[in-house]
Amino acid sequence: MARSHFNRFCFLALIIIAINLGLNTVESVWPLPQKVAVSGERYRLDPAGLDLRYGGGDQDQDCVVLDAAFRRYYPLIFPDWVSGKPRLKIPKKGNTFSLVVTMDRGDCDGYPTAGSSERYQLNVSAGQALLHSETVWGALRGLETFSQLVYQDDYGTYFVNKTEIEDFPRFQYRGILLDTSRHYLPVKAILKTLDAMAYSKFNVFHWHIVDDPSFPYQSRTFPDLSSKGAYHPMSHIYTQSDVRRVIAHARLRGIRVVPEFDSPGHTQSWGKGQPNLLTPCYNGGTPSGTFGPINPASTLSYRFMRRFFEEVTSVFPDSYFHLGGDEVDFSCWKSNPDIRVFMQKMGFGQDYTKLESFYMENIVNITSAFNKTSIVWQDVFDYHERIPKDTVLHIWKGLPASYEVELSRITKAGHRVLLGAPWYINHIAYGQDWRLSYNVHPQNFSGTEEQKKLVIGGEVSMWGEYVDATNLSPRLWPRACAAAERLWSDENQTISANKALPRLQELRCRLLRRGVQAEPLKPGHCRNEYQGI
Amino acid sequence: MARSHFNRFCFLALIIIAINLGLNTVESVWPLPQKVAVSGERYRLDPAGLDLRYGGGDQDQDCVVLDAAFRRYYPLIFPDWVSGKPRLKIPKKGNTFSLVVTMDRGDCDGYPTAGSSERYQLNVSAGQALLHSETVWGALRGLETFSQLVYQDDYGTYFVNKTEIEDFPRFQYRGILLDTSRHYLPVKAILKTLDAMAYSKFNVFHWHIVDDPSFPYQSRTFPDLSSKGAYHPMSHIYTQSDVRRVIAHARLRGIRVVPEFDSPGHTQSWGKGQPNLLTPCYNGGTPSGTFGPINPASTLSYRFMRRFFEEVTSVFPDSYFHLGGDEVDFSCWKSNPDIRVFMQKMGFGQDYTKLESFYMENIVNITSAFNKTSIVWQDVFDYHERIPKDTVLHIWKGLPASYEVELSRITKAGHRVLLGAPWYINHIAYGQDWRLSYNVHPQNFSGTEEQKKLVIGGEVSMWGEYVDATNLSPRLWPRACAAAERLWSDENQTISANKALPRLQELRCRLLRRGVQAEPLKPGHCRNEYQGI
Repeated sequence: MARSHFNRFCFLALIIIAINLGLNTVESVWPLPQKVAVSGERYRLDPAGLDLRYGGGDQDQDCVVLDAAFRRYYPLIFPDWVSGKPRLKIPKKGNTFSLVVTMDRGDCDGYPTAGSSERYQLNVSAGQALLHSETVWGALRGLETFSQLVYQDDYGTYFVNKTEIEDFPRFQYRGILLDTSRHYLPVKAILKTLDAMAYSKFNVFHWHIVDDPSFPYQSRTFPDLSSKGAYHPMSHIYTQSDVRRVIAHARLRGIRVVPEFDSPGHTQSWGKGQPNLLTPCYNGGTPSGTFGPINPASTLSYRFMRRFFEEVTSVFPDSYFHLGGDEVDFSCWKSNPDIRVFMQKMGFGQDYTKLESFYMENIVNITSAFNKTSIVWQDVFDYHERIPKDTVLHIWKGLPASYEVELSRITKAGHRVLLGAPWYINHIAYGQDWRLSYNVHPQNFSGTEEQKKLVIGGEVSMWGEYVDATNLSPRLWPRACAAAERLWSDENQTISANKALPRLQELRCRLLRRGVQAEPLKPGHCRNEYQGI
Repeated sequence: MARSHFNRFCFLALIIIAINLGLNTVESVWPLPQKVAVSGERYRLDPAGLDLRYGGGDQDQDCVVLDAAFRRYYPLIFPDWVSGKPRLKIPKKGNTFSLVVTMDRGDCDGYPTAGSSERYQLNVSAGQALLHSETVWGALRGLETFSQLVYQDDYGTYFVNKTEIEDFPRFQYRGILLDTSRHYLPVKAILKTLDAMAYSKFNVFHWHIVDDPSFPYQSRTFPDLSSKGAYHPMSHIYTQSDVRRVIAHARLRGIRVVPEFDSPGHTQSWGKGQPNLLTPCYNGGTPSGTFGPINPASTLSYRFMRRFFEEVTSVFPDSYFHLGGDEVDFSCWKSNPDIRVFMQKMGFGQDYTKLESFYMENIVNITSAFNKTSIVWQDVFDYHERIPKDTVLHIWKGLPASYEVELSRITKAGHRVLLGAPWYINHIAYGQDWRLSYNVHPQNFSGTEEQKKLVIGGEVSMWGEYVDATNLSPRLWPRACAAAERLWSDENQTISANKALPRLQELRCRLLRRGVQAEPLKPGHCRNEYQGI
């Protein structure tokens, strides 16, 4: 298909026209595409006459990801039509409209990766929309955009306007973290979150699957980890098939699943099913009965971690693997005589950060041996001198310095970074706190252009202290969408939260229509209110 | 039945024993009853053999409220039994357990009122529980308590312990305000809220039904108010039958429905369907096209209010009627030449609070003529000298002074007060903010004993700026339960939020089991997690 070229001035003018046409006639796309030109010319869509189909040769006709997307987007495009369940009829002559998808590469059997192109072009004109992308993942993004372009007038007639879009994400990594340890989240809640993520073009599900309070991952190799470490050994676990289901569901939406098995701290629940893994804490000369982080002085620890990571690195196909490494408390290590002997033997003196580095270095090496790129929390940067250069540092601290200072400091050392700190969305405040998320500028820090390029993206974290399936959706949506736009769209076009608000309200109503329990942004209403009471 | 007498020391000792028996064997009652003694002796309950029945003579056997409560509480007492839907079978011999209800007055056809007794005594012993109350409303409270005493062991067997309870509320008025103007709440969401209110013994639903943003109440007399003032004239309104349904549902749970038709401010939506009601604002010498509060200088306003209140005071049976009267902005009145002429004529000078008093006095008189007790927001106290003594002042301001100062000030003038200020539960903060609600002490202000008695109770307000059916339940529950206990229980026995936490966690799990989307209080889990995803 022909690539569109836009004169920048003309393009901005068209944007303004599109916005002025008003939200009643043109629904707005969220996150804002890089280049969009919407004309006042519009076409009626007959739900019986919409044909979502493959372009190109025969080899393109066999893509399970796109097949599934066609089935999924049909009811998303025509929600009233489907919920009303009228009989499908033969469209009247001339009522057909085709959305034709062509892809440069028809590779539909793999998983989305860090390097996957999500670029697409969408050209809507009379009788057809041409969607072109490099990969099937780009086609998914374009389908989502197309679904957001379709709107209804007051009489319920569906329309789409003449539109030209060229689009691609600003950052490759646009993630959401769910914490399934502090509270168990039913698989269904995770799947629903993945659905909603795709509506805002998020592409990474960071699964903080285990932590101190519980170990819901059911390991093939070490089944005691969940049978003893989960809140309940049957009802509060993720079986192998649950995990496969999550990964498959995410794949069909172009979403990567990056698991986190945080260590050596945050591992209290591991100790229940794996004796001799954690460090016994001492009270004076005797064990106190409590345990600290994983014992870094014992070869058993590394043997266990190697076997366990051999399993989990194969269960989770993504090439990224989150190792944690945050908030290690040294007091238990300090109390333990075996650890103290080991410190002496290794020549670490009294510097326990060296012990922590020693542990993390071993873990990173194990992970590398399984061909994974490690992500670690920024703490590791602070105490570790020899982090492999391909390790991604996950910034979660805004204090003592601001996250901008952290970005500057860590990219200066040549590391790639993932920005989490300003998007701890479990923290809530009264009112429109999505504005705080929207006003984050991930590359607005002191550093060279090379440093800025080391920001691979960002992540919205929903820590689980006060969150479970009862309140996950309304806390996450639409608040997380603010970060979604910041991570996808051109910053210069999306600088104003005030200007974004009407589009965000549109998006929120769209989420309700799609069954997502998205909370309100300000007084008002949606035509289709939430019905799932 | 025999009335129990407790020695206070012995009673406290028993409380402590009950608490120490642990939450695994004795589920705790929330709000804490005034006097409770639980013994370690326990009785098995066969769901097929539980008989909820009337004691006393034949005249007691015909109470629709109690009939409905029996039907409702059976599945609340045996949630697993009912959800598993096994066939009811004849109980084995000796497996029967009777809950026998006797009431001093069998009056079941009326509505709960401000004066209704909610006192009950509950005596659980081998084979039977005797529940005695003065009224059916007290019987409902006792049934709720009984349902909370029943628990399951690890094998699923139901038990109830030998228990003696004497209970009554500390305050007569324990309310929840829902705001259906800023966002429309489907009737189903209101009914579910009423269900959950009964679980914490709340007894007043303050229905802030209309306000500036929308007018969802469908009036028989003035249908244009909703057809023009609601967000949508069909899908976003409360019909007469909707209102009747809410009132009937509330009545069956011993909950009063106190409507609020706030004026003269907060009436923007009224103006859409009722021309000439609001004050036209002026810009210099010409009308600006915008409108202010209800026009207090026009006899048409009072004529309309009288006719409208004639309708609504008959639609809502409760003897209390909330007139609002808060946050009146004088700028529009000041701009209007007719108002200025009226001010002069009345000799009000430049004092617009006199104009506001004049308006409110008229409205209170209209309401009195329909035999209603008025509740007004505290603002009215601040500008009005001649408030009738039976008017209840609703304290919502904590600033500039604290609510304690407001309590002191208004009760000193001899007015009854309702405390709302510290329980604006729409305001959220990260973490366990229920503690703030729990640590409120409604009678802990400077004043005489007589003044303290003027506090009729308190109210949890869920204002709707950022709340609709998507997030109402998890914001309300279990946070509102903190105020429920403060308003029902003995303050000396419930002074510590830390001690309350385990019981509140039990309550939260119970709410989940009953289908209420109650959010978590801290990391952990419930046996029956929320399933309504």
